Amino acid sequence: MIIVMNPQASKEELQRVIDRITEAHCKVHLSEGQVRTIIGVIGEKKMIAELPVEAMDGVEKVVAVTESYKLVTREFKQEGTVVDVGGVLVGGDNIVTMAGPCAVESREQLLESARLVKEGGAQFLRGGAYKPRTSPYAFQGLEEKGLEFLAEARAKTGLKIVTEVIDAQSVPTVADCADVLQVGARNMQNFQLLKAVGRINKPVLLKRGMAATLNEWLNAAEYIMNEGNYNVILCERGIRTFEDYTRNTLDLSAVAAVKTISHLPVIVDPSHGTGVWQLVRPMARAAIATGADGLMIEVHPNPAIALSDGKQSLTPKKFSLLMNDVAAIAGVMGRKLA
Amino acid sequence: MIIVMNPQASKEELQRVIDRITEAHCKVHLSEGQVRTIIGVIGEKKMIAELPVEAMDGVEKVVAVTESYKLVTREFKQEGTVVDVGGVLVGGDNIVTMAGPCAVESREQLLESARLVKEGGAQFLRGGAYKPRTSPYAFQGLEEKGLEFLAEARAKTGLKIVTEVIDAQSVPTVADCADVLQVGARNMQNFQLLKAVGRINKPVLLKRGMAATLNEWLNAAEYIMNEGNYNVILCERGIRTFEDYTRNTLDLSAVAAVKTISHLPVIVDPSHGTGVWQLVRPMARAAIATGADGLMIEVHPNPAIALSDGKQSLTPKKFSLLMNDVAAIAGVMGRKLA
Amino acid sequence: MIIVMNPQASKEELQRVIDRITEAHCKVHLSEGQVRTIIGVIGEKKMIAELPVEAMDGVEKVVAVTESYKLVTREFKQEGTVVDVGGVLVGGDNIVTMAGPCAVESREQLLESARLVKEGGAQFLRGGAYKPRTSPYAFQGLEEKGLEFLAEARAKTGLKIVTEVIDAQSVPTVADCADVLQVGARNMQNFQLLKAVGRINKPVLLKRGMAATLNEWLNAAEYIMNEGNYNVILCERGIRTFEDYTRNTLDLSAVAAVKTISHLPVIVDPSHGTGVWQLVRPMARAAIATGADGLMIEVHPNPAIALSDGKQSLTPKKFSLLMNDVAAIAGVMGRKLA
Amino acid sequence: MIIVMNPQASKEELQRVIDRITEAHCKVHLSEGQVRTIIGVIGEKKMIAELPVEAMDGVEKVVAVTESYKLVTREFKQEGTVVDVGGVLVGGDNIVTMAGPCAVESREQLLESARLVKEGGAQFLRGGAYKPRTSPYAFQGLEEKGLEFLAEARAKTGLKIVTEVIDAQSVPTVADCADVLQVGARNMQNFQLLKAVGRINKPVLLKRGMAATLNEWLNAAEYIMNEGNYNVILCERGIRTFEDYTRNTLDLSAVAAVKTISHLPVIVDPSHGTGVWQLVRPMARAAIATGADGLMIEVHPNPAIALSDGKQSLTPKKFSLLMNDVAAIAGVMGRKLA
Repeated sequence: MIIVMNPQASKEELQRVIDRITEAHCKVHLSEGQVRTIIGVIGEKKMIAELPVEAMDGVEKVVAVTESYKLVTREFKQEGTVVDVGGVLVGGDNIVTMAGPCAVESREQLLESARLVKEGGAQFLRGGAYKPRTSPYAFQGLEEKGLEFLAEARAKTGLKIVTEVIDAQSVPTVADCADVLQVGARNMQNFQLLKAVGRINKPVLLKRGMAATLNEWLNAAEYIMNEGNYNVILCERGIRTFEDYTRNTLDLSAVAAVKTISHLPVIVDPSHGTGVWQLVRPMARAAIATGADGLMIEVHPNPAIALSDGKQSLTPKKFSLLMNDVAAIAGVMGRKLA
Repeated sequence: MIIVMNPQASKEELQRVIDRITEAHCKVHLSEGQVRTIIGVIGEKKMIAELPVEAMDGVEKVVAVTESYKLVTREFKQEGTVVDVGGVLVGGDNIVTMAGPCAVESREQLLESARLVKEGGAQFLRGGAYKPRTSPYAFQGLEEKGLEFLAEARAKTGLKIVTEVIDAQSVPTVADCADVLQVGARNMQNFQLLKAVGRINKPVLLKRGMAATLNEWLNAAEYIMNEGNYNVILCERGIRTFEDYTRNTLDLSAVAAVKTISHLPVIVDPSHGTGVWQLVRPMARAAIATGADGLMIEVHPNPAIALSDGKQSLTPKKFSLLMNDVAAIAGVMGRKLA
Repeated sequence: MIIVMNPQASKEELQRVIDRITEAHCKVHLSEGQVRTIIGVIGEKKMIAELPVEAMDGVEKVVAVTESYKLVTREFKQEGTVVDVGGVLVGGDNIVTMAGPCAVESREQLLESARLVKEGGAQFLRGGAYKPRTSPYAFQGLEEKGLEFLAEARAKTGLKIVTEVIDAQSVPTVADCADVLQVGARNMQNFQLLKAVGRINKPVLLKRGMAATLNEWLNAAEYIMNEGNYNVILCERGIRTFEDYTRNTLDLSAVAAVKTISHLPVIVDPSHGTGVWQLVRPMARAAIATGADGLMIEVHPNPAIALSDGKQSLTPKKFSLLMNDVAAIAGVMGRKLA
Repeated sequence: MIIVMNPQASKEELQRVIDRITEAHCKVHLSEGQVRTIIGVIGEKKMIAELPVEAMDGVEKVVAVTESYKLVTREFKQEGTVVDVGGVLVGGDNIVTMAGPCAVESREQLLESARLVKEGGAQFLRGGAYKPRTSPYAFQGLEEKGLEFLAEARAKTGLKIVTEVIDAQSVPTVADCADVLQVGARNMQNFQLLKAVGRINKPVLLKRGMAATLNEWLNAAEYIMNEGNYNVILCERGIRTFEDYTRNTLDLSAVAAVKTISHLPVIVDPSHGTGVWQLVRPMARAAIATGADGLMIEVHPNPAIALSDGKQSLTPKKFSLLMNDVAAIAGVMGRKLA
């Protein structure tokens, strides 16, 4: 941490800041300029994070030098993490695909979707049994019934199941059915939920929040890992910006950045990321070209009658065209479809 | 809802859209232009919300005409809601003030803070016992011990207690202590929590999410009211933008807008809204001038040693200067401090 | 400037950075921590701004300690600047009001508007003769004819004229007519225009760009002052964010912040800032309560037939209600209407 | 255009709106619902754009159905435009690369850069002679001297020259030297400049503004085409968002979207788009995978001593690795390097 003192700061104010730092068992490196004095603080990350010097008299600015997360970083673990989901590997040379409808709507719709996405080349079936919706009057999901249908689809197709969990209480119930528990964008800083999925023995897919910085996203992953669960898959799904042509702005630079900072696998959801089915296929290609480890794609047997997100869902035929493109780009990247 | 058809849409595509609407028991008003056809859909709000026409062939754009919330609106209830918190009225002619430290740090700190903010003119003591923090290594709050201290502070000062609840499970515990339950910005779309506080018999303070539109914020309030709890107080606390001089961008236009759309009382938190203590006092004045029903202010007996948010906390002396200003602006607005 | 070295940086890399700094006649203050080394750079602001160390091997992060502007700051000039516009003072105890239509549409419309805003209490008539419009097919202004009408309105009413100049070439023409030259939001970083208005002897109103940080806005003012024109009035008019209920998000915190950093007067335009006439009056009150030195308000004799921005224009009657409110808030702030 | 009337709107208010529309020679399609009336307006685009109905009594909301641009659209011209720059084709099957330093700093630096980027596979040399800089104290470019060096570099290498023009006055001077005139992000809505480059007979590269929507960007291109210059190349270079890890957020979805809406070629600048050289190569791959027609890349013989943007510049060696990747992705896309 670096503390920049005010040009008007008195000697007493400077001394009080220094005392505060040394009381916290951190070391001080002073750099006195013509106009202002700068203090370098050296010590344990945790002690520094707690140092409340910003409001002390004479302090102008405090700059953090190191980020607060640790377990997610490549300094902590250099080689990329490969998450093993019952034999399907996420990370490494593999490109995985998670596909299916936004919401589980009925047994027929789900089984039909499962069959179709398996045929199209997916290894995972996605589908929400619990749906967080902006309006209380919108379809909220089939809940436990939806989980049953997902389990049946797995039994019939062998696809792995990824589905959202929306509160700490239902973690055990969802974990019974799912192979991967998804924490949605709206819950990325629901820290109780992060801790709860951190205590189970199942992989977690952590979507980036709509307005989350990289730092916040990685800290959210750190919450999960800090509880003992190291099988975390990150998922970029677009951020909220002023642009309204797309539903969100898919931030592929974040994928490239996270791959350099962190050892965790990262996948991309271009369906929510753009909200426009015409853009899903080009952005899927771009995601793999960026270095992403996989994709999450909304596919619906009949998007026009979907109960949610029909506008961004692909038909099975368009999904299969997308998979062809992805295979070609994966080849260039020295990777292969899982 | 208005459906704008593509200029290339065929008659069959148009007919299929019309059929879909009439099947859902909604009515169709056709407007055929030279270039494109526009369909007005008339019917029950809920039926329309569920209509998945966006992905149908031939459809170019779908425009919602009415918002999905209802209970929060002035159409539903014309006169402004006044929330009675054990005799202290929020709304109406009153300007209320909720003040105190960001976090409950110790018994001494809290009791001292309570004494000071009461002296300064607050009716409510704020202070977090459960703290949602970006990093898992930052101070997470004193939890139940913190609630005890809050209860003691109430007993000693008569101040009402407003404190955050961070998951559905702890709603009963927090409700035992608090007079008003706060739902924080990060949990604004934690729908399980919204439903849980909607089922209790205590007022709820609903902070706006960092990237929440007015529409999403009011829908979050609708979730609470839809469960039966009509005592909702909204709180604007700044939104996330590109500007980094301030911690957030305090959106006072949203306050003015919400006052026209909704009957619910709205207060403003300029401490989190700006993140800079020097800006808290001018923005408190501005909030009241905009028409806000009250303020939430961070006050700490000694901001320089606060365990969180010291940079944006006021000293008791500065808080008292702020209260003088607020009283003067309240007078101009034909209102009075509670 | 502070340079944070990489933990892996070699001694040679460190030495090369140090050499680069000393070659530029700046001084180095070293602070060697357990994990990383930090370099404080001390020297002339200009020399430091040009130092391209960010890309040198071994450098992790570079942090600017001082901003690049100087003439706009209170360190440079402590007391607030009062801009004298032909006897009407902007700044000091005065609250000024600039009102009128968005665009000059016709002689009749402008003279009628001038009469009405004078009656309502404005000291300045605003109105665009040159209109920057998103679409090339929208009304682009009456241009020189519009300037003539403005001059006539001044002769008839005594109101001062503020009008936009959209390129360096037309600065002399506009300066012939206008008492204050406005640089619009879209041109805030049109540096050729800033230099041109910096070389004339007329006050300049500098609107904040839609996506401009405080730092960029103040640097734009620095461009004008650096050419010798110290009569700059800043104008906050809303920034672009994700919120779409309002046309822009009026950032009143920026006004409070600029008043602490800079000696320049700041006014607020709640008409463009919100884009919704119902919000103009409450936000005008809030602006004055924040500490703004004045307002710019769109008033149109008949908003329903305005050629641009009718939605955000006030009728003369609503303008007069607004002025009553503003006078009352000004009183609380110890100020008076000009 | 669709006009949504207020539920409380009177018959007289409705009639006045209808009269206003018919006076403007537009046609009205009425759709009367249970709660509110909706008016469809049909007529010439220009007439509708000018209709100021938003502020009329009884009007709740106005929704534009068609965008205001025309010449840029695929409806106007179905096949993709190929811009011929002295024999180098931009668009079609070609992938072009524009590379070079941010600014022309000296004859030696530029000639060396030209040699290196030609060797690396670029067809265009980029480099700013006129530099728009946030601070008036930062390096502003070599101006006409810089243009001379660019001309010399072209003569020596055969590379085409793309360089920025910052005001209408210098368009002829820059056009004398440049093969493509660049309009920078800060000038995207400098309409005088757009009109000026619209009147010359040289291709124009139009960068997207930092906070420009797709609609505004395409309208800026429409300004140029409306003056008669149809050789416009669009360039995505990142938008301003809350994320501060990268300098901007590169919006590749915008590229995919523009390719569907418009016939104009689009290239991508991942150097400004990310501001971090480590991210340039993955994002260059992603851009081509999205469907972009080319790249603009900052390359500097020695980024560590660059006078601007050193942090985001590639070394010649890293540039050549990038070009290998791009060639491979181009192959998958059925395209080839120019």
